[in-house]
Amino acid sequence: MSEQILHAVFLVAITAEAMTAALAAGRRSMDWFGVAMLGSITALGGGSIRDVLLGHYPLTWVAHPEYLVITSGAALATIAIARIVHRLRHAFLLLDAIGLVVFTVIGCNIAMAMDQPLLIVIVAGMITGCLGGVLRDVLCNDVPLLFRSELYASVSVVTGAIYVGGTRYGLPPEAVMLTAMTIGLTLRLLALRYNWNMPTFVYTRDLH
Amino acid sequence: MSEQILHAVFLVAITAEAMTAALAAGRRSMDWFGVAMLGSITALGGGSIRDVLLGHYPLTWVAHPEYLVITSGAALATIAIARIVHRLRHAFLLLDAIGLVVFTVIGCNIAMAMDQPLLIVIVAGMITGCLGGVLRDVLCNDVPLLFRSELYASVSVVTGAIYVGGTRYGLPPEAVMLTAMTIGLTLRLLALRYNWNMPTFVYTRDLH
Amino acid sequence: MSEQILHAVFLVAITAEAMTAALAAGRRSMDWFGVAMLGSITALGGGSIRDVLLGHYPLTWVAHPEYLVITSGAALATIAIARIVHRLRHAFLLLDAIGLVVFTVIGCNIAMAMDQPLLIVIVAGMITGCLGGVLRDVLCNDVPLLFRSELYASVSVVTGAIYVGGTRYGLPPEAVMLTAMTIGLTLRLLALRYNWNMPTFVYTRDLH
Repeated sequence: MSEQILHAVFLVAITAEAMTAALAAGRRSMDWFGVAMLGSITALGGGSIRDVLLGHYPLTWVAHPEYLVITSGAALATIAIARIVHRLRHAFLLLDAIGLVVFTVIGCNIAMAMDQPLLIVIVAGMITGCLGGVLRDVLCNDVPLLFRSELYASVSVVTGAIYVGGTRYGLPPEAVMLTAMTIGLTLRLLALRYNWNMPTFVYTRDLH
Repeated sequence: MSEQILHAVFLVAITAEAMTAALAAGRRSMDWFGVAMLGSITALGGGSIRDVLLGHYPLTWVAHPEYLVITSGAALATIAIARIVHRLRHAFLLLDAIGLVVFTVIGCNIAMAMDQPLLIVIVAGMITGCLGGVLRDVLCNDVPLLFRSELYASVSVVTGAIYVGGTRYGLPPEAVMLTAMTIGLTLRLLALRYNWNMPTFVYTRDLH
Repeated sequence: MSEQILHAVFLVAITAEAMTAALAAGRRSMDWFGVAMLGSITALGGGSIRDVLLGHYPLTWVAHPEYLVITSGAALATIAIARIVHRLRHAFLLLDAIGLVVFTVIGCNIAMAMDQPLLIVIVAGMITGCLGGVLRDVLCNDVPLLFRSELYASVSVVTGAIYVGGTRYGLPPEAVMLTAMTIGLTLRLLALRYNWNMPTFVYTRDLH
């Protein structure tokens, strides 16, 4: 049952990711095709990078092409309802935060099913949760936001570490998953609310 | 026999792609090595991404290293004959359009041989036809042109859809292939001639 | 025994790569997480791209997660000792040059073990030696330095060609490896000292 809920939340999360990516596409004046593609790449790219790096075939969207329909459709719908999406931006930040922890847990599950070592399981969760946004930023010609702000990746690592650690210690998987996701989500929302950031490293001299 | 013609056109197309990519490298003042590399990545990158995403090994240029010689050589030759390439730019736009539909059909063929679902076959064609140019633009530090102009990707999707659809309906493969490529090519040339573009999505507000 | 020395130098080289990448992250004001990630991607990214393109699983850092600890740790340590790293920048250029030839030889070894054709072995060495830096530059939103300067990739190709050529001719592998690395290293240091560059291709007209 928890598997089904996770899947339902996953579908909501890729929809939300595709819709916020569509706004980023709009900021770069992309055409409709670019909007659909950037939405799909952002929503499904993190999981794709994870699968390619782990050699885990077929990729999620190859096995389930309907996900491409969902993400492209959501991105294109955003063109019509950009004003509403803008008004609901706080709800979208919440959906994005939920997506982050859900993607993380799903990524960890896949690496665990492959019997990867503990650190790789956490990294797989982080790649799944975060790298879609990095692809979006690279394709929009920005320095990835992930590398600069808001505990985003840290939330993913904390969520993954609690989930993996708890599972290894033999605690009941569903309870551990819920706890990890709740802590991760809370941390992310607090970071957004109070504008928490990691310390940055500012270096101004050239190497040569 | 049609297989051989397709292969010959493929060789012409990767040569043309490498040569136009060399001009893009020249606009960024890359050195000779960068020119050869950007030419090869542009010409062979779409197929490489397709193969990596589908887990289809070995990659085309790993099985046929001579393709790397062709693309690097064509890119380097462009340095000497940039003036001629510039004068023949309309011919190159035609070659590029031919390459687009040929790459698309080849990509569809590979995905069909792997028994991928219909949507994935079309996507594989589109990735093969279009993503080399996206890699070129990312490496040149531009927002990918693909996401912003000229029905390029749409032509690939239309070509792939006709080809795959016709093949599924049991029509003779060669006739379907020729029809799909002719329609795709015509559409692309009309888009270039009359400056057709997809509508763009312009969004100027920040999400936060 | 030579295997062990190569491995030890590899560890020094990924440490040095991660540390210079950390300075690049600092120039973009990334946060601590971004510093660790950019350091790891730069140090291990070339080998990862090689493995993904060749279908060589598991990837190095997946089989040896401790490498991620080394590269992240080295990048983070750089935040504290940026001043020292700056003062030792000439030593780091030397370490980077050593890393280039060592990565190249390791990449060639992996492709040779897979019985790849000669050209692919050289390309695998070049990808291993050079593409980590390309990923770093793309993520920092720069046109890759590799495409523009200092015989970097050429050194890798020369090193790989000597190594592969000598090995094919049946010369003793260890002697060939040392010779190839010495010549490559010398070439790279001379290029840095005398500011040797490949000729660039400057093209200023638009294609359209």
